[in-house]
Amino acid sequence: MYSDRIRLSSLHSKVMSADEAATHVVDGMTVGMSGFTRAGEAKAVPMALIKRAKDKPLKISLITGASLGNDLDGLMAEAGLLARRMPFQADAALRKAINGGEVMFIDQHLSHTVEQMRNHQIKKPDLAIIEAVAITEQGHIVPTTSVGNSANLALFADKVIIELNMAHNPNLEGLHDIYIPGERPNRQPIPLMKVDDRIGVSAIPVDPAKIAAIVITDQPDSYSTVTPPDDETQAIANHLIHFFKKEVDAGRLSNSLGPLQAGIGNIANAVMCGLIDSPFENLVMYSEVLQDSTFELIDAGKMVFASGCSITLSQRCNDRVFGNLEKYKDKLVLRPQEISNHPELVRRIGIIGINTALEFDIYGNVNSTHVGGTKMMNGIGGSGDFARNAHMAIFVTKSIAKGGAISSVVPMVAHVDHTEHDVSILVTEQGLADLRGLAPRERARVIIDNCVHPSYRDALNAYFEAACKKGGQTPHLLHDAMDWHTNLEERGHMLKGK
Amino acid sequence: MYSDRIRLSSLHSKVMSADEAATHVVDGMTVGMSGFTRAGEAKAVPMALIKRAKDKPLKISLITGASLGNDLDGLMAEAGLLARRMPFQADAALRKAINGGEVMFIDQHLSHTVEQMRNHQIKKPDLAIIEAVAITEQGHIVPTTSVGNSANLALFADKVIIELNMAHNPNLEGLHDIYIPGERPNRQPIPLMKVDDRIGVSAIPVDPAKIAAIVITDQPDSYSTVTPPDDETQAIANHLIHFFKKEVDAGRLSNSLGPLQAGIGNIANAVMCGLIDSPFENLVMYSEVLQDSTFELIDAGKMVFASGCSITLSQRCNDRVFGNLEKYKDKLVLRPQEISNHPELVRRIGIIGINTALEFDIYGNVNSTHVGGTKMMNGIGGSGDFARNAHMAIFVTKSIAKGGAISSVVPMVAHVDHTEHDVSILVTEQGLADLRGLAPRERARVIIDNCVHPSYRDALNAYFEAACKKGGQTPHLLHDAMDWHTNLEERGHMLKGK
Repeated sequence: MYSDRIRLSSLHSKVMSADEAATHVVDGMTVGMSGFTRAGEAKAVPMALIKRAKDKPLKISLITGASLGNDLDGLMAEAGLLARRMPFQADAALRKAINGGEVMFIDQHLSHTVEQMRNHQIKKPDLAIIEAVAITEQGHIVPTTSVGNSANLALFADKVIIELNMAHNPNLEGLHDIYIPGERPNRQPIPLMKVDDRIGVSAIPVDPAKIAAIVITDQPDSYSTVTPPDDETQAIANHLIHFFKKEVDAGRLSNSLGPLQAGIGNIANAVMCGLIDSPFENLVMYSEVLQDSTFELIDAGKMVFASGCSITLSQRCNDRVFGNLEKYKDKLVLRPQEISNHPELVRRIGIIGINTALEFDIYGNVNSTHVGGTKMMNGIGGSGDFARNAHMAIFVTKSIAKGGAISSVVPMVAHVDHTEHDVSILVTEQGLADLRGLAPRERARVIIDNCVHPSYRDALNAYFEAACKKGGQTPHLLHDAMDWHTNLEERGHMLKGK
Repeated sequence: MYSDRIRLSSLHSKVMSADEAATHVVDGMTVGMSGFTRAGEAKAVPMALIKRAKDKPLKISLITGASLGNDLDGLMAEAGLLARRMPFQADAALRKAINGGEVMFIDQHLSHTVEQMRNHQIKKPDLAIIEAVAITEQGHIVPTTSVGNSANLALFADKVIIELNMAHNPNLEGLHDIYIPGERPNRQPIPLMKVDDRIGVSAIPVDPAKIAAIVITDQPDSYSTVTPPDDETQAIANHLIHFFKKEVDAGRLSNSLGPLQAGIGNIANAVMCGLIDSPFENLVMYSEVLQDSTFELIDAGKMVFASGCSITLSQRCNDRVFGNLEKYKDKLVLRPQEISNHPELVRRIGIIGINTALEFDIYGNVNSTHVGGTKMMNGIGGSGDFARNAHMAIFVTKSIAKGGAISSVVPMVAHVDHTEHDVSILVTEQGLADLRGLAPRERARVIIDNCVHPSYRDALNAYFEAACKKGGQTPHLLHDAMDWHTNLEERGHMLKGK
């Protein structure tokens, strides 16, 4: 039974129910789980834990790649299962528990988590629960639709539970490239020079003696909730394509631009879709999540290779890709997020990073995470890994939100995830601000003139002029700047009197 | 004449006065100059330009490694010579011009400047003025006490002026290791695995045809203004050494700790001096500036190798080092700042970065640059290059300033240079906060309990408790937080009623 999927016969005896496997998890444990932006998460054992936690208090620290699908983050939060959670999430119920102070959320750069474990800075998992399409003759784990942190979590954990998910296309095997950086002080350079280099092995080389349980499942990943481009996201894409064209014309970029990275979500996905009708050719991606746009670009003949750490697709795109995996397989690779986001590689290959901002300020500081400076939305994710070391760090957002009550461009962001030092280009549907080589006062002029919604332009100009009268490298009137955020909270609009 | 120093005889005809050489600089030019934290800056030609600018308007964009010695930054600012300045400065007169909006200051991560030039993101210099101890038989430039950005500035410039400074020990030759990363998309890994690896050449390989002038000078570098440790800096050092001991005991660090990086200035220098009386052995540095403490540690037999991009010493230490260079030469290397600060290397070798904060907040965000969120102090320097990719990012500061009118720990920093994601350890003379693996609310508790001056502890506790009542991942009361900064400005003390 399952002998084509569990190829090391000594492991056949480890097959058991999810409830039985879940007994390996005890109160207070640090648990690592597979899963990256709704792709390839363990499904059955977490559900068994949720069931248990409802009967009897059970708290764990949960470490994953990124957010989980099948509402697991929310269900675990609601069951009171989560004492601590890192490094990313994107669930309404978990978000509520985090902002209420019930779950301690450690919001990390996604390339940092396993490096910190390796170096004894944070606790290694007691147990890892990893989704697989197969277990090799050596007992090694073949991941499913994400690698994320699965390889290191499995290698660091004392025990491993495998969820063998029959719902995934077995042809996923061969897609993964598992490379683990060596221990310091003898670490060697990561030998990746091109986005399509394969530098590792195709399965996670765990010691089979650590495999405590194998659970057979048959539940698909959740679909992404990405929506088709709208007028504003199309306008953002157009501004960016126009900018790239100018860069190519000036000889500053080649006609294949450079390795592209795109953050998750509607705006970045729409921007990438915009490249279908661009003059650029032979595009490549070196990114975290491969979304619908990646496959639209491949199908359009625009993109020749995409490296990521997970594949997360909408319902519309899912069957097209996973039902025809052989068509895409030689154009794809999935790597550990430590490698997809590694500063060494981001700097070496010169990534063009396109990420979504929650808001940015007139000097180019970006808030990716905190509404009103206090409430967590999702987390910084990989945006900092890319922006900090990228060839070009681009942040995109619509200029207004909530029917105009919110301007995404503010005098001063109330939380900084990316400092002005790390931000090259800002784009809204209004236009594009090229901040390269500019001082803060010059940045403000370019941002206000190009990115701000007309309904906020006068107010930002007035702020900037008044602040400049006071002087400084980065002129500010601190309370006036904060009024924008407190007005929104107290009166429902960022500007007084609206 | 100077044939031992100018070994390519065809260049002998290029020797001229500083005034004559300075005629190569014309209004509107982008000029690159050697110099990194008072070490190895061009001296005579800038003075000639200052003289010219006083007679007749002359404006340039000036790009260096970091700050200049011999008051040049201030004298250039006062002469109205500087239209733009990047990537760092540390001069009172220039600071005033920057904050007044007269000089556009582009405050950059120090590893970014030449990478941005190479990739056509910022303008390359029209002309470079580089201090040298010798010109080789090939016409290549042997730098003096800093490499900084000199190699790339000279290679990118159309014309090069060399200042051959007879005041430097000629034995500096052989100390430098010039490595230039290749062009993308074919860039290879940087082949440095250990702090003492030599990966480049010992002189800057410029085309001699570009050398437009050679000026003979005899003026020494300025001394650093570093002061001996005081009670507070000694206490900071003690807290950090105690922490390192615990890390060693727990097996998380070896007894030689790891490659150390220390920011410039009194506090970081004092912390490094504190290691002389520590139990750690065979220390190595991989840092920007090698200061007094580096040589104290070498003399004490504690440090076996130091890699930097400049040597900047106090008067007390200067003769001891440069008068006995042969004693130290096999324990030192000077590299381009792009390499001393490179994210690939910082991550690979696992640097322990120790940098000075201007202030930090209860959640661990650090302000390194802006007084009151508006006025530039010096610049971010290399602190972000190190903190962002380090094994351990440590920030140090005294808990209070101005006789207690300022708390260095505030509810919310008014300018963020290093986000909470990039900060591992905070230390004041009060104690040490280990933030690794903690959520923001936990960080606040640890920071307030360990780092805050007693005279501010109640106020910060009250702020944190009130903010938590409002909720959020990072609880804040925006106006209450800003009051600390505006109280200081308006009433001379951060707390109301004082």
